[in-house]
Amino acid sequence: MTANILGKVFLVGAGPGDPELLTLKGKRCLESADVILYDELVNRELMGYAAKDAELIHVGKKAGAHCADQREIETLLIQKAREGKIVVRLKGGDPFVFGRGGEEAEALSAMGIPYEIVPGVSSAIAVPAYAGIPVTHRSCASSVAIVTGHRATDSCGEVRWRDLVRSVDTIVILMGLQNLREITRQLLNGGCEPGRPVALIQSGTRPSQRTLVATVATIADLVEGAGFKSPTLIVVGEVVNFRSRLQWRESIICDDTMVAGCEALEATPWTHCV
Amino acid sequence: MTANILGKVFLVGAGPGDPELLTLKGKRCLESADVILYDELVNRELMGYAAKDAELIHVGKKAGAHCADQREIETLLIQKAREGKIVVRLKGGDPFVFGRGGEEAEALSAMGIPYEIVPGVSSAIAVPAYAGIPVTHRSCASSVAIVTGHRATDSCGEVRWRDLVRSVDTIVILMGLQNLREITRQLLNGGCEPGRPVALIQSGTRPSQRTLVATVATIADLVEGAGFKSPTLIVVGEVVNFRSRLQWRESIICDDTMVAGCEALEATPWTHCV
Repeated sequence: MTANILGKVFLVGAGPGDPELLTLKGKRCLESADVILYDELVNRELMGYAAKDAELIHVGKKAGAHCADQREIETLLIQKAREGKIVVRLKGGDPFVFGRGGEEAEALSAMGIPYEIVPGVSSAIAVPAYAGIPVTHRSCASSVAIVTGHRATDSCGEVRWRDLVRSVDTIVILMGLQNLREITRQLLNGGCEPGRPVALIQSGTRPSQRTLVATVATIADLVEGAGFKSPTLIVVGEVVNFRSRLQWRESIICDDTMVAGCEALEATPWTHCV
Repeated sequence: MTANILGKVFLVGAGPGDPELLTLKGKRCLESADVILYDELVNRELMGYAAKDAELIHVGKKAGAHCADQREIETLLIQKAREGKIVVRLKGGDPFVFGRGGEEAEALSAMGIPYEIVPGVSSAIAVPAYAGIPVTHRSCASSVAIVTGHRATDSCGEVRWRDLVRSVDTIVILMGLQNLREITRQLLNGGCEPGRPVALIQSGTRPSQRTLVATVATIADLVEGAGFKSPTLIVVGEVVNFRSRLQWRESIICDDTMVAGCEALEATPWTHCV
């Protein structure tokens, strides 16, 4: 499938972790690729779709990496395409939801490299779903905001936490675990009721999925002893309460860690593991 | 694959229209189903995955349908599962993003019917992507809100358009075409700059995809002569400007309707077809 002159780049969303949440087009791209550049959070099982002689390049960035890495990735995409190769850039979730896919598409476009965007199932929606939380619901959530929780000094400016409290019913925060205390402080300062439910979901859609439920007032203290680590997604809003009835996934996987987490919560009177 | 006693229901997101944006799990569910209940907006090509003897039931709701329809769907899901069948409830986009999947899961849970949620690629993210618009971008969008534009008298209460203007960088509005004039009026009253870019995308991710770009101040007048109809998604925010460089999809499909639409726009000085 190597092209004659220029190759082509596919910016592919791998989905949130469950390998079955890859799209049919994503699978086809992986099967056709000469080169696959994949992120840290991509499920490695997906590499099973790659051709035997495909070149697999891990470009995963750990927290704290420099911007130069992103430029290196873009340079590599351009270089491989110029060698006439079919290149897949595989990203966790969706490439245009905090995946820097926009920047990569711009770099390719500027250099005249053909490319396609292959959207993926976004972690922002699917991870709550796997924890029994619908991000919208006719009875209590007609709006959902998806925001990043890891930037405070970015060129983008800060997320306007106080305004978010008033404007949307559900807030989904990606990459917010490190700043959880500051985020909840801002939400409370913005007028959020202290009792508004919050869920933290670690490794969502994977067998090791763990969920911790508390409130905006209590979650920051509670998480300290619970050993949560990245990737952890945060959901704030009344929709978290649906989890008490809609835990379809955890009743299937019934993972030890998760059950232990829930028991701990039930023993703590100032939280509710709904 | 018929179960002995109780069947099982899979609430499956079909994705936004491009049949290749179905997930691998969604495809597997369709192949295994005894019964498929599908919505109006689901791409009928996907029925090609159904078994020859599967029962296909169109439960699509047109605009203005009554709430009773939703109860009828839930009753049907429960009834078919009690007959021991594998039932797929196939919804456009993702089942938990304004898909009423939460209500259906609640109904199943209340009756003790086993079910799974199979997230799909959300139209809210993928449709803009197919029009060359990343809903987030490091340079100008660290937050995106997804809201419904068709409810004014719902139990959910109204979307808080004025607060949204201040709180998020990108607003994606589903089902907002009918209320476009009122929505833009509210956004302007809320302090939105009149020149903020807006894109309307009809039939996103399908070959018939059409895009109209203007501003918050001009879009409502402009759309009147353009013949846009449902399903049309609305994107408000600076990210719309990326479309000038990132029209990867439309340069591939180069559909007559769309080209005609763009030409019309270029001839109209008070809009910009970026």
